[in-house]
Amino acid sequence: MNRLNPPPRLLMGPGPINCYPRVLSAMSTQLIGQYDPVMTGYMNEVMSLYQQVFKTNNQATLLIDGTSRAGIEAVLVSCIEPGDKVLVPIFGRFGHLLQEIAERAGAEVHTIEVPWGEVFQPEQVEDAIKKIRPKVLAMVQGDTSTTMLQPLEHLGEICRRYDVLFYSDATASIGGNPFETDQWQLDAVSVGLQKCLGGPSGSAPITLSERYVELVRKRHHVEAGIRSEHHENGEASRIRSNYFDIPMILDYWGEERLNHHTEATSMLYCARECAINLLEEGIENCIVRHKLHGDAMAKGAQGLNLKLFGDQSNKMTNVVGVYIPENVDGEKIRSQLLEDFNIEIGTSFGPLHGKIWRLGTMGYNARKDAVLHTLQSLETVLRRAGHSMSAGAAVDNALGVYSGA
Amino acid sequence: MNRLNPPPRLLMGPGPINCYPRVLSAMSTQLIGQYDPVMTGYMNEVMSLYQQVFKTNNQATLLIDGTSRAGIEAVLVSCIEPGDKVLVPIFGRFGHLLQEIAERAGAEVHTIEVPWGEVFQPEQVEDAIKKIRPKVLAMVQGDTSTTMLQPLEHLGEICRRYDVLFYSDATASIGGNPFETDQWQLDAVSVGLQKCLGGPSGSAPITLSERYVELVRKRHHVEAGIRSEHHENGEASRIRSNYFDIPMILDYWGEERLNHHTEATSMLYCARECAINLLEEGIENCIVRHKLHGDAMAKGAQGLNLKLFGDQSNKMTNVVGVYIPENVDGEKIRSQLLEDFNIEIGTSFGPLHGKIWRLGTMGYNARKDAVLHTLQSLETVLRRAGHSMSAGAAVDNALGVYSGA
Repeated sequence: MNRLNPPPRLLMGPGPINCYPRVLSAMSTQLIGQYDPVMTGYMNEVMSLYQQVFKTNNQATLLIDGTSRAGIEAVLVSCIEPGDKVLVPIFGRFGHLLQEIAERAGAEVHTIEVPWGEVFQPEQVEDAIKKIRPKVLAMVQGDTSTTMLQPLEHLGEICRRYDVLFYSDATASIGGNPFETDQWQLDAVSVGLQKCLGGPSGSAPITLSERYVELVRKRHHVEAGIRSEHHENGEASRIRSNYFDIPMILDYWGEERLNHHTEATSMLYCARECAINLLEEGIENCIVRHKLHGDAMAKGAQGLNLKLFGDQSNKMTNVVGVYIPENVDGEKIRSQLLEDFNIEIGTSFGPLHGKIWRLGTMGYNARKDAVLHTLQSLETVLRRAGHSMSAGAAVDNALGVYSGA
Repeated sequence: MNRLNPPPRLLMGPGPINCYPRVLSAMSTQLIGQYDPVMTGYMNEVMSLYQQVFKTNNQATLLIDGTSRAGIEAVLVSCIEPGDKVLVPIFGRFGHLLQEIAERAGAEVHTIEVPWGEVFQPEQVEDAIKKIRPKVLAMVQGDTSTTMLQPLEHLGEICRRYDVLFYSDATASIGGNPFETDQWQLDAVSVGLQKCLGGPSGSAPITLSERYVELVRKRHHVEAGIRSEHHENGEASRIRSNYFDIPMILDYWGEERLNHHTEATSMLYCARECAINLLEEGIENCIVRHKLHGDAMAKGAQGLNLKLFGDQSNKMTNVVGVYIPENVDGEKIRSQLLEDFNIEIGTSFGPLHGKIWRLGTMGYNARKDAVLHTLQSLETVLRRAGHSMSAGAAVDNALGVYSGA
């Protein structure tokens, strides 16, 4: 079996992207025991660091040991009892995922949809809430499948008025786009490391409001068949998953330190380093950087004679969709970029499959050299495929953005 | 925030233990894209490597992205339909965990128990199967809470005769104790990396027989509400979890490469390295090594005037339980070992809490120097706590084992 020796790819798609070197180094740190005071100290640090990342005072801020999808499932399966109504406004592929996960948890899911490339107005969400009266509103912030960023700032107030729990999956947007857990009155947020936080997939930070925690505590159940005094109403309300049972996970992260899973220490080291890296740069600075390089990539793409996809006033900073020109084979261009230039860009899903490419500028790769190399290489392969454009315009456009022209 | 700089602990408890340095290095390798041909090549290598680790020809051999408990839940929730009967023979804490997870998946769980420190005879299991007629037999191989190793070799044949699916959680035993998936006729096995494989918690290799796969394929369901042609029987049989939906995970690891989660690449690198490391040493050699150092630790502990816990003819090679002497404070001894010597040993759970310590010798730490340092240090703290023993006998006993005396 060969030694692990992957090619030095530059990952300029919708994520995962290249990790920050310091994050990779953190993962190669030797382990300590699960209940070592140094380890529980690190767990407490992680809680505090992600309170800052999420901009929240929520005590219940911790990691789910799995990919970002594990975070989504933990949040939903812990709060949804079979038959509960959940409203999912869908504006891309990851809205469908929220629907799917909520359905599996036993929810009666109601959806509203806008065409891919658009986002919802607060009134549309409020109308649906009035009609459906859901227990939970579950909504993606940044859906990489369409590159759209759903404004969330007016929805928390609406949810409070109708006594709805407000959950958002901000995996693709956190760190590169504004996010305000407390100010926007969110009850639950889940993310992953593999986008703007510049880590690998495999750990899902979440934060939960007191309202959310109070609700799921009523479903508390201690392992090995012992019923808690909080709940004697039988099977109906028992959380369907042990792994994703948030009350139990809270007991593990809390002062009780009740054994649940064995914490994935290397991924915890990694999540810790991702947060420190972000906070040392400063969240606002990091958003500005994502905006700058995202703008440079978008302007550069226009210089390649590529048309931008979707509502540009509601776009994520960290990924841009461009229509694949009709005269070229989209997958062949992607392969050539990978094979000749070691650069990866993304295709898309569902209705956009084969129609758009997605160009990411996030985390470690929200960098000038990464943007310029990508544009130059894309120009080369497009030119050789017969696509016409003005030579050098892509890079010139990007450099114009950087010089503030 | 401080730089990540944990103390150099020697982890001689029941796991997690120190990682092999090469495994830590693998995790700091830069990422590549999720569908990069090099990445799918690594995924295929991982399947083939773990076929060797599990000693199976099962095509369905892959990783669940989570801790070992995630592997257990994926196996159980995918095959259990609400109301299915599951038999769990319990001989320690992790049997209770299987019960708990199966119950949450909706199973009607039946248990049989032996006192902690013992294992089951095949007849006991067969009698229960005859009486209960379960769909699934779920059983731990090595339960670290008691240090017992349940013989599994006669149970597969019994399961076949009564048409029962045979699942074992071999997290704590794999790599350090014999395990034969195909020869013992297992239908599903799940493990973790953090014991004899010498990695961190966070990835759960599993292997599934064709019989298991055929069964769960009937519950196949493609994301976003699209029903498969294989299954039109309505909600009852839909798998309750998206994250742990094995048919979907098989489509991701198989040639279809249908998007499910974003593979946790760093943990996959890690799982790959753990397997290569084991196979380069040779599974049989690795088991012999675990037996050697486990014996040295046990004999050494007897030299400390400590009584061994449980049925020594059915003990795991990689962990030994010793009664805490009545005249010492068990937790104080553990704290002193940690603080003065940077050595961690384990306490236990449930009925054994405060009664036994658990001394592990596994993976990277199944080494002569690790055993000798642990015994010497334990001798020092026990001596200073007033426990009487013959000076130097522990190390002499261990050295006797190493010299074949």
